[in-house]
Amino acid sequence: MNFALPHTSPPSDLLIEPMVRGALIEDLGRAGDITTDLLIPDGQNARARLAARQPGTVSGLIAAALSFRLIDPDVRLVPHAPDGSTVAKGALIAEVEGSARALLTAERTALNFVGHLSGVATATHALVEQAGGTKARIVCTRKTTPGLRVLQKYAVRCGGGFNHRFGVDDAVLVKDNHIAAAGGLKEAVTRLRGRLGHMVVIEVEVDTLEQLKAALDLGVGTILLDNMNADMLRRAVDLNNGRAILEASGGITLETVRAIAETGVDYISSGAITHSAPNLDVGLDFI
Amino acid sequence: MNFALPHTSPPSDLLIEPMVRGALIEDLGRAGDITTDLLIPDGQNARARLAARQPGTVSGLIAAALSFRLIDPDVRLVPHAPDGSTVAKGALIAEVEGSARALLTAERTALNFVGHLSGVATATHALVEQAGGTKARIVCTRKTTPGLRVLQKYAVRCGGGFNHRFGVDDAVLVKDNHIAAAGGLKEAVTRLRGRLGHMVVIEVEVDTLEQLKAALDLGVGTILLDNMNADMLRRAVDLNNGRAILEASGGITLETVRAIAETGVDYISSGAITHSAPNLDVGLDFI
Amino acid sequence: MNFALPHTSPPSDLLIEPMVRGALIEDLGRAGDITTDLLIPDGQNARARLAARQPGTVSGLIAAALSFRLIDPDVRLVPHAPDGSTVAKGALIAEVEGSARALLTAERTALNFVGHLSGVATATHALVEQAGGTKARIVCTRKTTPGLRVLQKYAVRCGGGFNHRFGVDDAVLVKDNHIAAAGGLKEAVTRLRGRLGHMVVIEVEVDTLEQLKAALDLGVGTILLDNMNADMLRRAVDLNNGRAILEASGGITLETVRAIAETGVDYISSGAITHSAPNLDVGLDFI
Amino acid sequence: MNFALPHTSPPSDLLIEPMVRGALIEDLGRAGDITTDLLIPDGQNARARLAARQPGTVSGLIAAALSFRLIDPDVRLVPHAPDGSTVAKGALIAEVEGSARALLTAERTALNFVGHLSGVATATHALVEQAGGTKARIVCTRKTTPGLRVLQKYAVRCGGGFNHRFGVDDAVLVKDNHIAAAGGLKEAVTRLRGRLGHMVVIEVEVDTLEQLKAALDLGVGTILLDNMNADMLRRAVDLNNGRAILEASGGITLETVRAIAETGVDYISSGAITHSAPNLDVGLDFI
Amino acid sequence: MNFALPHTSPPSDLLIEPMVRGALIEDLGRAGDITTDLLIPDGQNARARLAARQPGTVSGLIAAALSFRLIDPDVRLVPHAPDGSTVAKGALIAEVEGSARALLTAERTALNFVGHLSGVATATHALVEQAGGTKARIVCTRKTTPGLRVLQKYAVRCGGGFNHRFGVDDAVLVKDNHIAAAGGLKEAVTRLRGRLGHMVVIEVEVDTLEQLKAALDLGVGTILLDNMNADMLRRAVDLNNGRAILEASGGITLETVRAIAETGVDYISSGAITHSAPNLDVGLDFI
Amino acid sequence: MNFALPHTSPPSDLLIEPMVRGALIEDLGRAGDITTDLLIPDGQNARARLAARQPGTVSGLIAAALSFRLIDPDVRLVPHAPDGSTVAKGALIAEVEGSARALLTAERTALNFVGHLSGVATATHALVEQAGGTKARIVCTRKTTPGLRVLQKYAVRCGGGFNHRFGVDDAVLVKDNHIAAAGGLKEAVTRLRGRLGHMVVIEVEVDTLEQLKAALDLGVGTILLDNMNADMLRRAVDLNNGRAILEASGGITLETVRAIAETGVDYISSGAITHSAPNLDVGLDFI
Repeated sequence: MNFALPHTSPPSDLLIEPMVRGALIEDLGRAGDITTDLLIPDGQNARARLAARQPGTVSGLIAAALSFRLIDPDVRLVPHAPDGSTVAKGALIAEVEGSARALLTAERTALNFVGHLSGVATATHALVEQAGGTKARIVCTRKTTPGLRVLQKYAVRCGGGFNHRFGVDDAVLVKDNHIAAAGGLKEAVTRLRGRLGHMVVIEVEVDTLEQLKAALDLGVGTILLDNMNADMLRRAVDLNNGRAILEASGGITLETVRAIAETGVDYISSGAITHSAPNLDVGLDFI
Repeated sequence: MNFALPHTSPPSDLLIEPMVRGALIEDLGRAGDITTDLLIPDGQNARARLAARQPGTVSGLIAAALSFRLIDPDVRLVPHAPDGSTVAKGALIAEVEGSARALLTAERTALNFVGHLSGVATATHALVEQAGGTKARIVCTRKTTPGLRVLQKYAVRCGGGFNHRFGVDDAVLVKDNHIAAAGGLKEAVTRLRGRLGHMVVIEVEVDTLEQLKAALDLGVGTILLDNMNADMLRRAVDLNNGRAILEASGGITLETVRAIAETGVDYISSGAITHSAPNLDVGLDFI
Repeated sequence: MNFALPHTSPPSDLLIEPMVRGALIEDLGRAGDITTDLLIPDGQNARARLAARQPGTVSGLIAAALSFRLIDPDVRLVPHAPDGSTVAKGALIAEVEGSARALLTAERTALNFVGHLSGVATATHALVEQAGGTKARIVCTRKTTPGLRVLQKYAVRCGGGFNHRFGVDDAVLVKDNHIAAAGGLKEAVTRLRGRLGHMVVIEVEVDTLEQLKAALDLGVGTILLDNMNADMLRRAVDLNNGRAILEASGGITLETVRAIAETGVDYISSGAITHSAPNLDVGLDFI
Repeated sequence: MNFALPHTSPPSDLLIEPMVRGALIEDLGRAGDITTDLLIPDGQNARARLAARQPGTVSGLIAAALSFRLIDPDVRLVPHAPDGSTVAKGALIAEVEGSARALLTAERTALNFVGHLSGVATATHALVEQAGGTKARIVCTRKTTPGLRVLQKYAVRCGGGFNHRFGVDDAVLVKDNHIAAAGGLKEAVTRLRGRLGHMVVIEVEVDTLEQLKAALDLGVGTILLDNMNADMLRRAVDLNNGRAILEASGGITLETVRAIAETGVDYISSGAITHSAPNLDVGLDFI
Repeated sequence: MNFALPHTSPPSDLLIEPMVRGALIEDLGRAGDITTDLLIPDGQNARARLAARQPGTVSGLIAAALSFRLIDPDVRLVPHAPDGSTVAKGALIAEVEGSARALLTAERTALNFVGHLSGVATATHALVEQAGGTKARIVCTRKTTPGLRVLQKYAVRCGGGFNHRFGVDDAVLVKDNHIAAAGGLKEAVTRLRGRLGHMVVIEVEVDTLEQLKAALDLGVGTILLDNMNADMLRRAVDLNNGRAILEASGGITLETVRAIAETGVDYISSGAITHSAPNLDVGLDFI
Repeated sequence: MNFALPHTSPPSDLLIEPMVRGALIEDLGRAGDITTDLLIPDGQNARARLAARQPGTVSGLIAAALSFRLIDPDVRLVPHAPDGSTVAKGALIAEVEGSARALLTAERTALNFVGHLSGVATATHALVEQAGGTKARIVCTRKTTPGLRVLQKYAVRCGGGFNHRFGVDDAVLVKDNHIAAAGGLKEAVTRLRGRLGHMVVIEVEVDTLEQLKAALDLGVGTILLDNMNADMLRRAVDLNNGRAILEASGGITLETVRAIAETGVDYISSGAITHSAPNLDVGLDFI
């Protein structure tokens, strides 16, 4: 199952199957779809069209296809606008064909995945468009919806964004509390370098230009500039002078993102694209 | 763990623990919180305040408390504004105390739960407020975020709303496709009554007043009026004349809900309160 | 996999697979079927006939088929008397064909499912037959064997019975302790109606005709008459006069059920059909 | 948790917790006990008495205690008639004390375990009593209720019986099909001895005295005599002359067991004590 | 999937799938194989040869095949030297063909299984070879690598060894602490015989010839001789005079095993073959 | 539970509990520790000393403590030589106190963890010692024992080593096959940089000095030098001239590691420390 555009590698079915299975069981409960089971004949087949009811960027077809397949392995989902496509209102996203019972039973779960993940991809894509032409990349955060991180990170990629850490284990992000507890930035960075191998990136969060300077002096290669406005970010870019990778964070909206992108920062991170993206309205119409 | 206001019964820890555990593991990955483990001394304690950074209705403290407790059973979360409270910007929601490592390690997961579920509660509460003084109740749907249905349904209750079906197994909702496959509404209802016991509610979805009349003639006790405007809903209420419970569905927004509530329908269902509610901004500040 | 008669919708494989897998692992332990693995050649095929060694009503073929299939996806089970069939002693229920090793390894688990669930269906069917010609329907309870509720509820349907609640979450049943704690029946019903949506049935348990009258006066639509004899049940039916759905419960046996059914109650519930049904004797004979 | 009489070692909580947790979740579904949650005040405590409503042998208190404890760790169950006790009608089995909500929520699951397992223990004990004074021991089989083998095997011990194999992996039982496929009894036994270590018992099933003689000549130490009547069993015991351990199987009932025990066989196995034992009627009465 | 030589029955896929799935997820983490996903085209196929880089005995192909198949069901692994084969340096063990992405993604997990299990088989085979021509059989112990017992026990069989107990539940091994707590060997054996059925082997561990004599006098049929040298073992064999099965344990190395085997003991047990066997060096070379 | 020396952060109990639980269940099977349950009185307490029977570096006490605690929460393990300590033969590692049954039941699982992980730590420490005084750090690989990666990586840290990637998802390692499929090193690196965010390290594997030069010219910051001897490594270090971090891999043994460390490489990776480390002999002696 690999419905995404070539530049957006989807997570393996092995990784997302537990999520899809869990979502189906959450909906089927103990007795299953009693309305469908009692009213739809067992051998009846059906075809349906998955379509966008508003413009947006598609994500989640891989989970939708798995939703149908886990109910009935013979259901076939043919993507017309694969994950990562940007579609107009009314566009056909995919066609589904198979047992009418299976289609009706899995419909809501499939739509919940596509609607939610396309919402994330669409919100991401909007920021990416705004930052177009600058070198700034849009990245997500760990502010994700519980249980859906892997899929939301994928949806961000579908929207043209990049991924930050997947969790607290695959990279280091040093914040105020860590620095205070360690007895200062230098002590913190020294200790981390003394304990961590060469495959882990260390990023330090700074609130002021003084802190930025201190981090640069320590040779920190990746720095998060927290809650700075465009003006201050520009000065940070100047001060940095190309040494560290700079990430702007905090207060990123459709209105502010362009100005921030134009300051010259390398990355702009947004929690809203994962935690506050409204669903994309998609529907399944039986033919 | 029972932090909710008396009128909102929270789900048992037995039911939500797998979700919280899954969310923590999703964040801890394989190596755990490497930044915290390397920089924060093992025996150090800390206190932090969970506060609202914007006004809203609180939900999810039960999941936040469990997040901390699964990392360290000795962490204590004392709620100041329990689930179901409506709070002003800046209000203290809860205090957390315990191992500094545990607080930092579980912080993001706890906030992700409270932010998301308070967002759902706040969106629900806004509709409930708008419908105030009418008899109409706000209900959620099955358009929920995959994996979070139990908690989102609880957040709806925290916001003053009511729950519709939890899944396809605990009540019947007869839609167009079911009626067509069964050979007509009468055939569908007859078959369902012949097969289902007395503890299952049968609801029928209708698009027109003619369909409504047909359902009423069959003695259907619960009817969903799909995508009708306020004017048509009023005529449906007249036609019904108190016989069936009426639920209005489709196109419910903060702008339209008041007029719909005033038509005299009993329930108004909204998918947006679960699938498109933006996070409530909550933060954890260490003291 | 859908071996049941049209009027008995079986639970989805997605829901019963964990039970079947668990039962197989419980039997295979760590080393698997060492007798079979050491004595039966790997490529050898076999055919076997599943037959009833006593008359009864069949249930559980869906679980038996899954038992074989989880050991070897190429094993085929062809039902001759699908779930819901009533068969004579010696009747052929199904034929199984495939790897001899797989047939021997899964045999006991498959038979344990069919024997147990056919036992439940047979016990149900006996009550249904006794109540034949009356309007009374036989329903099961929550007195089920731990871990098997979904399948036992299905077996009850195979036997011609109906299902009561699947759990404590999908309908309300108000008992003595609840009424006492709430401060009276009126208070209890009022509170429930104030908190629950329109998709949940509220049933109240009563022991006396006075309590029945009180419940009817409150407009309760579904009432459980607990431990009343036929005479008292008849008076309850008179008093009800068609207003509420009446369920008789307690002391239901093959000897008493006819008289109770003739009182005019709508439902008769029995715990014994799930918790005390003896196995139906079925055997697998290799050809 | 160790409520059984000294001579009946109960399975570790680590092993039975998944079964108890599964049974609770099966009953709680998604929303939990909505009747209790809405009507019983959160802080209210209660006491209840678990009593036998008919005479029998107790088993399953360890699972009942765990049922309450998984809902609320503060509930205390004090056994008066621990697992393995034989009680009269009306006897107090245990007292339970704690949160009224927890008691009501876990009540049905706890009773389902105690009722079912005490049923198994009682059926076992009846056979054991009948065989009293002979050397014959009553043993169970693999004809168990799916998912409950560990607990049913324990219930058999509570009833004074012994356990046969726990599965197909912990001992060998050679049947007709195995012998045929291996090319004869001698070939089968030779192959097994050549492949299996010294910690695995090999039992061979025989239908005739000729087969018994062949097995004894091969030095087989444990032999199952299948479907032989008392007369034939007596001749088998004579022929054996103390060499092998003999197990009688097939057609064991309360009526036949005494005569079979008196033939001098060592073990008598019964599937009915696990697959067809009716529930023991136990009730929980709030004080 | 059944790649083993006829005399080594492999565990069912049902039993090992959780281990293989767990190992893959442990390697894929949350994001999957990002290097492969970004660099290898989706539709590209590949072939690779699994070869031995040093001589040894093969085990674990069944787990390797499952590793590839769980990533992509269309990958085919054709064994050339099935589990249980002894191969020379450079020998082709198997060929794998299918999606290049799947091959690269599952490669390390597949190799980790084959390398580890072939290491166990090779270490076992070395002891078996040393003991060749004597009646002594090499057996493993419970000193296994956590989580891999089923597969390690299989690897021991692939190496020509035999299995001891799979756990503490399928046979009895009475040690010093048990005897002391029971009040003596006689008391211990009497109690065990009074409580255990006929399908459980009782083995007693002895340190001295006096203890051996006591155990033989009690009719114990299986005796573990702990930490005795060859000389003392020979005296034990004499004293036993063919009555009990004797197992030598402790201090078994490639250097000592021959002398011990020649003492006439029946079994020689080694923990090192499971807990300290170095990996067999195997590689996967793309063609 | 935090028994490690300050400089080695152990994984959270939340992450290792499933491994320990799985290992216990693997040993307990279905019936539990039947020897102990039948011979050791229920209320009896015991104390035992965990001691090293050979010199080495300790790791795995956190898993041992959890093993005992999952059987009985009241067992206490007091570490004397916490994880990361280097001990002499005979040294006391920890004391355990609690129920005698629990100690005996969990003993083997606890020892299997400590023995295996201390083996890994000891093998790591030996390489670390050899490289002492140089700047080279010893790192592990993904050649780990299936199912134990998190704990083995921790054991490597206990031995003074560093961790490489935890899986294929948290960093990039570009090998021959990737480069070939991408159409060259430049294309591969360009594509990766275009798709990956700033928190992922990209390492490239090279076999020759020409490849090294090409990688350096592309600005690759982390380079794996595969299977180069000390002489060639020295030339690589010269060529690098401090630009990239250099990792030597392949053919690392106790004999070769010193010479390689003295070439000036930054990291030396070894698969043998995880996949081929012999157990450290540890024993539990009851007092």
